[in-house]
Amino acid sequence: MAKIALGNHSEAAQPDCVRAVLAEVVLTFLFVFAGVGSAMAAGKMSGGGDTIMALTAIAMAHTLVVAVMIAAGLHISGGHLNPAVTLGLAVGGHITLIRSILYIFAQMAGSAFACLLLKYLTGGLETPVHTLASGTDAFQGILMEIVLTFSLLFTVYATIVDPKKRVTGGLGPVLVGLVVGANILAGGPFSGASMNPARSFGPALAAWNWTDHWVYWVGPLIGGSLAGFVYENVFTVPSSHAPLPRDDEGF
Amino acid sequence: MAKIALGNHSEAAQPDCVRAVLAEVVLTFLFVFAGVGSAMAAGKMSGGGDTIMALTAIAMAHTLVVAVMIAAGLHISGGHLNPAVTLGLAVGGHITLIRSILYIFAQMAGSAFACLLLKYLTGGLETPVHTLASGTDAFQGILMEIVLTFSLLFTVYATIVDPKKRVTGGLGPVLVGLVVGANILAGGPFSGASMNPARSFGPALAAWNWTDHWVYWVGPLIGGSLAGFVYENVFTVPSSHAPLPRDDEGF
Amino acid sequence: MAKIALGNHSEAAQPDCVRAVLAEVVLTFLFVFAGVGSAMAAGKMSGGGDTIMALTAIAMAHTLVVAVMIAAGLHISGGHLNPAVTLGLAVGGHITLIRSILYIFAQMAGSAFACLLLKYLTGGLETPVHTLASGTDAFQGILMEIVLTFSLLFTVYATIVDPKKRVTGGLGPVLVGLVVGANILAGGPFSGASMNPARSFGPALAAWNWTDHWVYWVGPLIGGSLAGFVYENVFTVPSSHAPLPRDDEGF
Amino acid sequence: MAKIALGNHSEAAQPDCVRAVLAEVVLTFLFVFAGVGSAMAAGKMSGGGDTIMALTAIAMAHTLVVAVMIAAGLHISGGHLNPAVTLGLAVGGHITLIRSILYIFAQMAGSAFACLLLKYLTGGLETPVHTLASGTDAFQGILMEIVLTFSLLFTVYATIVDPKKRVTGGLGPVLVGLVVGANILAGGPFSGASMNPARSFGPALAAWNWTDHWVYWVGPLIGGSLAGFVYENVFTVPSSHAPLPRDDEGF
Repeated sequence: MAKIALGNHSEAAQPDCVRAVLAEVVLTFLFVFAGVGSAMAAGKMSGGGDTIMALTAIAMAHTLVVAVMIAAGLHISGGHLNPAVTLGLAVGGHITLIRSILYIFAQMAGSAFACLLLKYLTGGLETPVHTLASGTDAFQGILMEIVLTFSLLFTVYATIVDPKKRVTGGLGPVLVGLVVGANILAGGPFSGASMNPARSFGPALAAWNWTDHWVYWVGPLIGGSLAGFVYENVFTVPSSHAPLPRDDEGF
Repeated sequence: MAKIALGNHSEAAQPDCVRAVLAEVVLTFLFVFAGVGSAMAAGKMSGGGDTIMALTAIAMAHTLVVAVMIAAGLHISGGHLNPAVTLGLAVGGHITLIRSILYIFAQMAGSAFACLLLKYLTGGLETPVHTLASGTDAFQGILMEIVLTFSLLFTVYATIVDPKKRVTGGLGPVLVGLVVGANILAGGPFSGASMNPARSFGPALAAWNWTDHWVYWVGPLIGGSLAGFVYENVFTVPSSHAPLPRDDEGF
Repeated sequence: MAKIALGNHSEAAQPDCVRAVLAEVVLTFLFVFAGVGSAMAAGKMSGGGDTIMALTAIAMAHTLVVAVMIAAGLHISGGHLNPAVTLGLAVGGHITLIRSILYIFAQMAGSAFACLLLKYLTGGLETPVHTLASGTDAFQGILMEIVLTFSLLFTVYATIVDPKKRVTGGLGPVLVGLVVGANILAGGPFSGASMNPARSFGPALAAWNWTDHWVYWVGPLIGGSLAGFVYENVFTVPSSHAPLPRDDEGF
Repeated sequence: MAKIALGNHSEAAQPDCVRAVLAEVVLTFLFVFAGVGSAMAAGKMSGGGDTIMALTAIAMAHTLVVAVMIAAGLHISGGHLNPAVTLGLAVGGHITLIRSILYIFAQMAGSAFACLLLKYLTGGLETPVHTLASGTDAFQGILMEIVLTFSLLFTVYATIVDPKKRVTGGLGPVLVGLVVGANILAGGPFSGASMNPARSFGPALAAWNWTDHWVYWVGPLIGGSLAGFVYENVFTVPSSHAPLPRDDEGF
């Protein structure tokens, strides 16, 4: 029951679509600037580098800025910031294919600008790229990225997209930020915990280091699509259903 | 005044019950994957292990992912993730016994899958099990788990279940995540601060290490039931009551 | 324009008052158990003690548990947990004097129970008491506690009590938790950043160490009362006022 | 399409304007007391200083207290706390010029009082000033402050000011706190990540150290104005527009 919609050819020229694509550039730029910037800051400071402290600081920065930028863009572009989110929503029919492609290029551009600017502003410090830890092979890395991105998109569906969700007032974006932070704390020292091909693309471009880069497209895009498919087909209640009585819902 | 309801025999075959049980498997899997994963990540990285820094990182991961997964599942299964929550709610009559049993098996399955997968993905790293710290005996450990789980279920009742609560919009699940984090920071170095038999079950199974395992069933299940009983009988205002005037409520 | 109300003599015997006082015992117990417990955990673990890491872990635990316990008790007792909050609200006429006194004894009892239990559960570890750092004299300590508690009560008034507040859905209690955490990170290494006589009372009793204890009654009670007086008389808009046009409010 | 409004000459004498200006003094005082205090605390404690741990503790304190003080002041003054916010909102026509000037002096006064008091309360410890890290020149520092402050004001517009925002209930101020924290984690070790001339002014005055001080006026004021201009002219949808259908918004 895939629900991908092609979209209207003239869509890209509509003002709200232009505005949305521009928002994805700006929001992804601001997200990656703080996210990659926090990894560069941790590497620069004493006590930083490959420690649990640095991982915690980087996870905290991503938690905060992902929550903010999704919330800031929710009413403009949907606040995707991430090709895996865009594809995961396309699988559920929540965005057209044409707009999806424009979003993904916008996200890659925003990430690239942020990383090139960070490199200049820090006097040429290398932008840290996502790579597999020694001891993690490509299959393990892809599988971990699938699980972590499934978790991310499941949260997007259950707390932002689903009309039956119980979360209101922009709390959905905050929750998506929280799950990104938790997943970085768990997967960071193994697969890198990217969950986002655009987030991985900018640093790889600025550092011109493409080691393992394909892993961060394959894993997140599979994980995101899978979550969209599973949520739509298993956990979305047909809207013709009568509301369940309170006790049946588990409380 | 226990309010346990047996439930209808055909309940397990109803579509919304199947969906809810599946949701408990998926949500508990995603929760334990991030939670236990963060403990394995802390153990692997330099500066990790048995330090206050590792405890903080692990507490942060649990805070974030518990908040998210309860919020994500609230409209599907209630987002229990935890046999102590399920039993604590059954004591108050908020879920039938039959559904409770299905939920508990679902939570154990989700936790087991997550830990076995983590072991594979990390190249065979041991899943860290909950055990009593040296200097903490079984009675002290059980008593601490009772207090911490009482705190957890009291929060569930006061911020999610109680119709007179002042918290709206999915903030209840976030608060439950917060109390889990605070309790880990307090009880972690003494009893392990599990508060959740399913969370303890997965790592014990994957590591095949059952030392002290019973403590994490006895303590949380007593603490959760006690909170359900106390909240329902002491702090639930009969709904026939007229609303209290503002000043009488303490503000 | 102090607005202290004496209260009705029979108030203490009303069911909702009994329930509220019991709630203050339970909520303060759970708050202090996690708060003081986190300080004991930091002291026990390697890397703990008098470090910025320990301060951060303790501040995080207080942030989380204060937010939760105020939110959990808001509809029962107001969720004070703190004699400085109770007095600060009494100054604004939001709670009667009789109920205030009952609340303060309840808070002291909850804190004492929590600390005595923690001492037993940790095999006799000392409960860490609030004391002035070397280099901080009593006047400086009291002044710092006044500022920090003013900040706390200002937040309570502006985000929970004020009917013109823009915060809804239980976000007020979360914000009070956040300001407690920020203030601990700032004042912890100087005055101890108690902001709460009951929070200081439990550990002093369990450790039978009353050094500087009076500072944590004088400072917080002055700071809390001052904030109540200032907020009511300077920042509370008379309710007969017409609503201000949007641009006049600063946005 | 700048929308700066001059304002009425008698505005400063109106009661709600006096109240708002006083609120900016108090709120900025409380914000800077916790923010600068956390930097002094980190410097004093063992393990503090120029480490990733200290940066994380300071970022956490700013995250928490910025969220709180904006939320606390939202209904009184708008909760600006920051000349860059005030100017950024003036550019969009959301506050008059006269009131803007009063706000900026109020913010400077609040910050100065907080830092002078901190110096006294800590027995003469130096208030840490924002300076450029070695290896960061003035142009790089200004550019980084522009990006970070653009991020801050974009968040203010998208989550507090914009009537089409999807964030309700005071979650906007929390999100502004979060973006401040993320930006400190990224920019702290390079430009200092002030984003706020008043936040930089207090410590410079108390320590009488004006090194690089101009950078923290030029960068934030340009970044804030730019965000106001861009948001108003690119991302604000004309209110005559019909509401967009759900799928067109990206979900």
